[in-house]
Amino acid sequence: MGKALIIGCGGVAGVAIQKCCQNSGVFEEICIASRTKSKCDALKAKLDGTTKTKITTAQVDADKVEELTALIEKERPDVVLNLALPYQDLTIMDACLATRTHYVDTANYEPEDTAKFEYKWQWAYKKKFEEAGITALLGSGFDPGVTGVFSAYAQKYYFDEINYIDILDCNAGDHGYPFATNFNPEINIREVSAKGSYWEEGRWVETEPMEIKKVYDFPEIGEKDMYLLHHEELESLALNIKGIKRIRFFMTFGQSYLTHLRCLENVGMTSIEPIEFEGKQIVPLQFLKAVLPDPSSLGPRTVGKTNIGCIFRGKREGKERNLYIYNVCDHQECYKEVGSQAVAYTTGVPAMIGAMLVMNGTWQKPGVYNVEEFDPTPFMDALNRFGLPWKISEAPKLVD
Amino acid sequence: MGKALIIGCGGVAGVAIQKCCQNSGVFEEICIASRTKSKCDALKAKLDGTTKTKITTAQVDADKVEELTALIEKERPDVVLNLALPYQDLTIMDACLATRTHYVDTANYEPEDTAKFEYKWQWAYKKKFEEAGITALLGSGFDPGVTGVFSAYAQKYYFDEINYIDILDCNAGDHGYPFATNFNPEINIREVSAKGSYWEEGRWVETEPMEIKKVYDFPEIGEKDMYLLHHEELESLALNIKGIKRIRFFMTFGQSYLTHLRCLENVGMTSIEPIEFEGKQIVPLQFLKAVLPDPSSLGPRTVGKTNIGCIFRGKREGKERNLYIYNVCDHQECYKEVGSQAVAYTTGVPAMIGAMLVMNGTWQKPGVYNVEEFDPTPFMDALNRFGLPWKISEAPKLVD
Repeated sequence: MGKALIIGCGGVAGVAIQKCCQNSGVFEEICIASRTKSKCDALKAKLDGTTKTKITTAQVDADKVEELTALIEKERPDVVLNLALPYQDLTIMDACLATRTHYVDTANYEPEDTAKFEYKWQWAYKKKFEEAGITALLGSGFDPGVTGVFSAYAQKYYFDEINYIDILDCNAGDHGYPFATNFNPEINIREVSAKGSYWEEGRWVETEPMEIKKVYDFPEIGEKDMYLLHHEELESLALNIKGIKRIRFFMTFGQSYLTHLRCLENVGMTSIEPIEFEGKQIVPLQFLKAVLPDPSSLGPRTVGKTNIGCIFRGKREGKERNLYIYNVCDHQECYKEVGSQAVAYTTGVPAMIGAMLVMNGTWQKPGVYNVEEFDPTPFMDALNRFGLPWKISEAPKLVD
Repeated sequence: MGKALIIGCGGVAGVAIQKCCQNSGVFEEICIASRTKSKCDALKAKLDGTTKTKITTAQVDADKVEELTALIEKERPDVVLNLALPYQDLTIMDACLATRTHYVDTANYEPEDTAKFEYKWQWAYKKKFEEAGITALLGSGFDPGVTGVFSAYAQKYYFDEINYIDILDCNAGDHGYPFATNFNPEINIREVSAKGSYWEEGRWVETEPMEIKKVYDFPEIGEKDMYLLHHEELESLALNIKGIKRIRFFMTFGQSYLTHLRCLENVGMTSIEPIEFEGKQIVPLQFLKAVLPDPSSLGPRTVGKTNIGCIFRGKREGKERNLYIYNVCDHQECYKEVGSQAVAYTTGVPAMIGAMLVMNGTWQKPGVYNVEEFDPTPFMDALNRFGLPWKISEAPKLVD
C-alpha cells in the first residue's frame, strides 16, 4: 500500500513500529528516524526477517525543520508518524507542509519552557494544511486518541445526545517496587502537582492539584482511587461533541505512589535546581532518577491490567442512557508480544492505526483534525484486530 | 579548682564548654582538643573575655592512643571529658590509663562496623581502672545520664523498691521543615530500623522495629506518639536498680517524620552502597544529607520543648507508689543561651556536671561506673543550678 516515515524510537515508537510490521499489507515500507540512529538500527535488526515490511533507518534532529524537510524529500513517505517529543510537533508539521506530506501524532505540542497542554498552537495550522491539501491527525494515542474515537462511536451508534463524559485512565499494574515511575519522574511530578480542571456548561472549572478524588470499581480490576486531572482531549471533545454539558478526566494513583512522591518533593529530591556536592553541580531529580529503577526494566516484572475508557451519559429516543466503552490491557501479555508493558502498548497501537487510516485514504481530509472528527467505525474495527479489543457495558456504575 | 581536657568540638561539646565557662570556680582551665583545631579556636575566640576560665586549644586524632597520651601528658588535666565519637571511647580510656587521669563520657563505645550498643567493651576496663586508682564515669549525658541519676534519686528518697521504670524521651520541637534531622540521618535511620528491646523478669525481650507504639500525654507538651526502642541505659539500670522487674525506653517520633524516612529508605536514598552517577561513585545517603537542611541550621528556627524523664512504679512502706521525674527544656531558651537547641543542650549540661563531680572528688571511686552507681543528690542539685531543673509528679499517668 505505502510507506511511512516514523520519527522517534522510544517505548511507544517501538510498539507502533512492531505493529506496522504486523500489518505489512498496508505498511510495505517504513523508515525509522531518530536523533540516535543506532537505536533505530537495533530495532531494525530485531525485526528484519520477521516481517514483509521493508525497514530503513535514518538520523534526524527533529528540532530542525530543514533536516526534517530534507529527510522527507529523500524518503518520500505517504505519511509522517511523529512519535518524538511533544516539543517537536511544530517543526515536524512545518516539514510536512514544506513537502505536502500527511502528518499524524499522539500528543499535543507544548513549548519546552511553559509546560502548558493546549491545542491552540497546532490548531493554528488548520488553514495552511487545507491549502496544502494534506491531513494532520492530532492525538492518535489512547488518551487522547482512542478516548475520542470511543466518543465519536458512542455519538454515532448509541446516543441522540451525549451530555456527560467521564474519561477514566486506570493503571493497576504492579512492578513490585515500593516506588518507581513508568516514565520520566519529572512528567509524573508535573501531572500530580499541576492544578486540575474540567469543562462544564461552556467554561473551564479549575481545581487544586489532586483536590477531587473518587473511588471507582473498574471492570476486571476492582476498586481504585482516582483523581481529577486536566488532560488535553477535554479541550477538543468539548468543541466536537454536540450537546455536551460536562467532561472530566480521572487517573488512578495508588496512595503509596502519591506518598512517596510527596515525601521526595518535601525533602527536595525532585528539585531541578542543582546543588553543590563534592565540588560538582548535581540536579537532585537527576540523581533520584539514577537511584530509581530504570523504567525500561519494569516491563518484565509488571503484572496486572490497565482499564481505560469513557463513561457516557445522555439520551436516546427521549430516554436516559449510560454506557461505559473501555479497553482492558494486560501488562504481561503486552510484554510477551512486543517487549513493552501496557502503558507503551496502549499508545503505540492507536498510533499505527491512525497512520494506517490516513495513509490508505480512509481518514484523509485537508486540514488539522482531532480523531473524533473522523468516522470512528474503521478505527474501532482496527482496535479489535490489532490487540486493543474494546467492550461496551450498558448502565455502568457512574462517577458521582 | 582544676583543669579539664575536653575532646571533641561538635554541638554537644559546644554546650558543655560554655557551661564549664559559666562555672569558672570549678573549671579554672580547660583545653579543647579536636581533629580540626580551627573549630576549637573559633569557640575559644567567642568565649575569651566572657569568662574567668582560661581556655587553650589543641589538635588531636582521637583514634590514636599515642597522640592522646602525649596530649594528656602535656596538658596534665584533672579529668578528660570525652565528647568525641563513640568509636573513640576505648582509645581515650587507654590514654587515661596510661596517664592515670580520670575519664568521663556521654555515650557508650560501639565498634564502627557493627553498630551494637553495649557496655561490655567499656565494663571490661573495670579492673584496670581500679588498679590505676582512677575513675571512669560512663554515660553522663541526658539519656543515658540524667535518667540514671533520676533512678538513683527515686531509689534513695522515694521508694523502698522500684519495680518498673519507663524512660520517656519526647522531643516536641518543630523546625518548620516537612523533614529534617537533628543530627546525622544515618543514626536516625539506624534507630528507627533497628529491632527494639526491653528488659523484663531477668531477660531481654526483642520486638520488631517500631512494633510497640504508645500515646502519652506529656506534661507541658501534650499527647505524642512514642515507640519502644532499645537504649543503652536499660543495660546498666537493669543491673543497678535492685528489685526491678521491667525497664523500657520510649522515644517520640512524628508520623510525618517516620513516613518520610520510610519513603526515602524505600527508594534507596538512605543506602550506603555507592551508585555510579555521571562517572562518579556517589553514596545516596551522603547525597541525601547534602539535600536536607544542615542540622546546625535548625537551632534558630526550632520552637517547642523537650520532656525527658522516668516513670517509676514501686513500693514505699508497703504501699504502691508511682512517680514521674522529668525535665522540660525549651528549644528557643537554649538557643538564646548557648546557640544550640535543646537536643545538644540536654546532653552538654550533664556532661559538664559529671566532669565537675569527678574533678572535685564528689564522684571519685577507682573503677568504671555508670552514673546511677554514685550518690545522685549533688548531681540533682547541679541540674537545677545549671539550666536543667527537674520536676516530680506524684501518681502520673502510666504507660499501659
